[in-house]
Amino acid sequence: MSETRGLKLLSTLAEDGRLTVELVEDALPAPTGDQVLVRIEAAPINPSDLGLLFGPADVASAEYSPRRIVARMPEPAMRAMAARIGQPLGVGNEASGTVIAAGDGPAAQALIGRRVTMIGGDMYAQYRLIDASGCMALPDDVTAEQGASAFVNPMTALGFVETAKAGGHKAIVHTAAASNLGQMLVRVTQVDGLGLVNIVRSAEQVALLRGIGAEHVVNSSDADFLTRLEDAIAATGATVAFDAIGGGTQVSQILHAMEKVASRGAAYSRYGSSMPKHAYVYGSLDMGPTILTRSFGFTWDVSGWLLPPFLQQAGAQTAERMRQRVRDNLTTLFASHYKARLSLDEALGRDAVLAYNARRTGEKYLILPNG
Amino acid sequence: MSETRGLKLLSTLAEDGRLTVELVEDALPAPTGDQVLVRIEAAPINPSDLGLLFGPADVASAEYSPRRIVARMPEPAMRAMAARIGQPLGVGNEASGTVIAAGDGPAAQALIGRRVTMIGGDMYAQYRLIDASGCMALPDDVTAEQGASAFVNPMTALGFVETAKAGGHKAIVHTAAASNLGQMLVRVTQVDGLGLVNIVRSAEQVALLRGIGAEHVVNSSDADFLTRLEDAIAATGATVAFDAIGGGTQVSQILHAMEKVASRGAAYSRYGSSMPKHAYVYGSLDMGPTILTRSFGFTWDVSGWLLPPFLQQAGAQTAERMRQRVRDNLTTLFASHYKARLSLDEALGRDAVLAYNARRTGEKYLILPNG
Repeated sequence: MSETRGLKLLSTLAEDGRLTVELVEDALPAPTGDQVLVRIEAAPINPSDLGLLFGPADVASAEYSPRRIVARMPEPAMRAMAARIGQPLGVGNEASGTVIAAGDGPAAQALIGRRVTMIGGDMYAQYRLIDASGCMALPDDVTAEQGASAFVNPMTALGFVETAKAGGHKAIVHTAAASNLGQMLVRVTQVDGLGLVNIVRSAEQVALLRGIGAEHVVNSSDADFLTRLEDAIAATGATVAFDAIGGGTQVSQILHAMEKVASRGAAYSRYGSSMPKHAYVYGSLDMGPTILTRSFGFTWDVSGWLLPPFLQQAGAQTAERMRQRVRDNLTTLFASHYKARLSLDEALGRDAVLAYNARRTGEKYLILPNG
Repeated sequence: MSETRGLKLLSTLAEDGRLTVELVEDALPAPTGDQVLVRIEAAPINPSDLGLLFGPADVASAEYSPRRIVARMPEPAMRAMAARIGQPLGVGNEASGTVIAAGDGPAAQALIGRRVTMIGGDMYAQYRLIDASGCMALPDDVTAEQGASAFVNPMTALGFVETAKAGGHKAIVHTAAASNLGQMLVRVTQVDGLGLVNIVRSAEQVALLRGIGAEHVVNSSDADFLTRLEDAIAATGATVAFDAIGGGTQVSQILHAMEKVASRGAAYSRYGSSMPKHAYVYGSLDMGPTILTRSFGFTWDVSGWLLPPFLQQAGAQTAERMRQRVRDNLTTLFASHYKARLSLDEALGRDAVLAYNARRTGEKYLILPNG
């Protein structure tokens, strides 16, 4: 087999602050050893992909031409991106597709002709050469769309549950909870008997989560949000939070509410309660700073949370148990829903970019690189 | 023995926001069981005492009369203080004094006539009734002044070192590092072979720390502060910080510098390095919010740090080992220096309040309740 040619999306930041996102033709060599060549059928656009694709670049006033976008990166963001300047970067954390060629290795040979789901970057492309260990064969009755989001959201939802259990917490607070990830978390915590307080931003999102059986849903747009949040935390005993937003004061509001619940009926202590309270920031829907008011005593932790280091720390056995659970429940507990489907060309159009880059909770887009 | 009468300082916040700090006469019963009665000789004013004594109340425009101050608490601060409203609170975490009476218990009897150092609150008073377990007998050659600050600062300095070692860190960043606590930390880390980066705010403080042998001292008022901070972190390998300030961006600056050092020479990763970075906030010299820019990847923790829960978690054996080390080195490693000495009456005078409540780094005051 000779080389295979196909389109691939690249994002390149120049030193002068110009960000170029473009489709280029890529030539992939034949797979060797444990490598497989996958024809990509579906790849979701996750918030974590958007950070690499555009980051805080100004997409509204960018120049759009066929297969190419040139946008300006704001000056304050350049410092944090120094390490990527001048490097053409592939984008797309996960995808599903069909193995069309394989190296001689047995792990690769076992996947020939199989539909697989993959993690590993560079997935916004027509073809991907990847080690067999980065692939998971899908059950026969799972479609490419159903298998496209089998890693990031499902493993993150299970990672939250594992983190909460390991920390001795009996209930979780989750923000931006109407997301695909949030819906998975509602279902998983129900099955696992863990409490969950869902924070959303609109009445529609309250209805959506109630519709799938969520018990505690609080709307941060309501005037009595803080009282309701405190009541839900008291009802569930939540002492850990996972926050997708990052910027602003919501992490402080959650820790403050946990502290108020922990201090109920206690004598005044200037140092606050001794109840451990832990908030994990796993996303940056708001890229502004996290504002910690520290109005919650001295017994608190705020941490970054990211799937790969979590999996590394949890160990191979836990990771494999989690993967198995996802594979067995892809069309139920871990089902994803998509707002729209885009070809690679369409994904570089202005209307599409403005829509999916708005990161509206629960509105997930899917790229179909081979039409 | 009948009751003993003496002056005691109380801080009371009324519902209308008026904070009254006053000296009242207190009548203490004779000690029983394991209790001892201590005539207090010296009690330091620590930043942690000022939070309870005045908090953010407006002491500049308060009414001062003999043995009484009435100040106004700003409205935004009242919410966090709801639990103390209407309660007359004693102040003063630690002190030294002489045991003048004891209960029948052997632990109490063993202390009769001894000079002791104590922790337990209510120390801004002429007498204190306390359980023998809250006292530590001082060596004969230690004066009341030398023994007055034997708990809060020394145990905190050792607590930082224990926390850093337990987390696998080989060097510490410390802010407001010219404080009495900071000077102890310089000496302890030298003995223990742990790296230390001292952040101070003036050239005078740089000179002070260099004078006691500190190797890495960076001045946040210098134009090239961030570069120097990064260099000092690179030179020491510091991955943990203890911050006395709380408000503002210094925690972010430290984590950002640690991240830059960890990423040197690495390929670009939008998620940042996998180097654990931990900042502990142990004080609130700036009561404003902690601003986390999150410009330091996803592998980070920011936590509150407080001595009592640390000691509880560390266990009795570690705590006793730390106490023993303090007792053995009170006039060397753990020596404190005082800016001025005040009687209880003087401590309620306007000039004195404005001076000690300014919390100037390294300017510690001592109350001598019995003249």
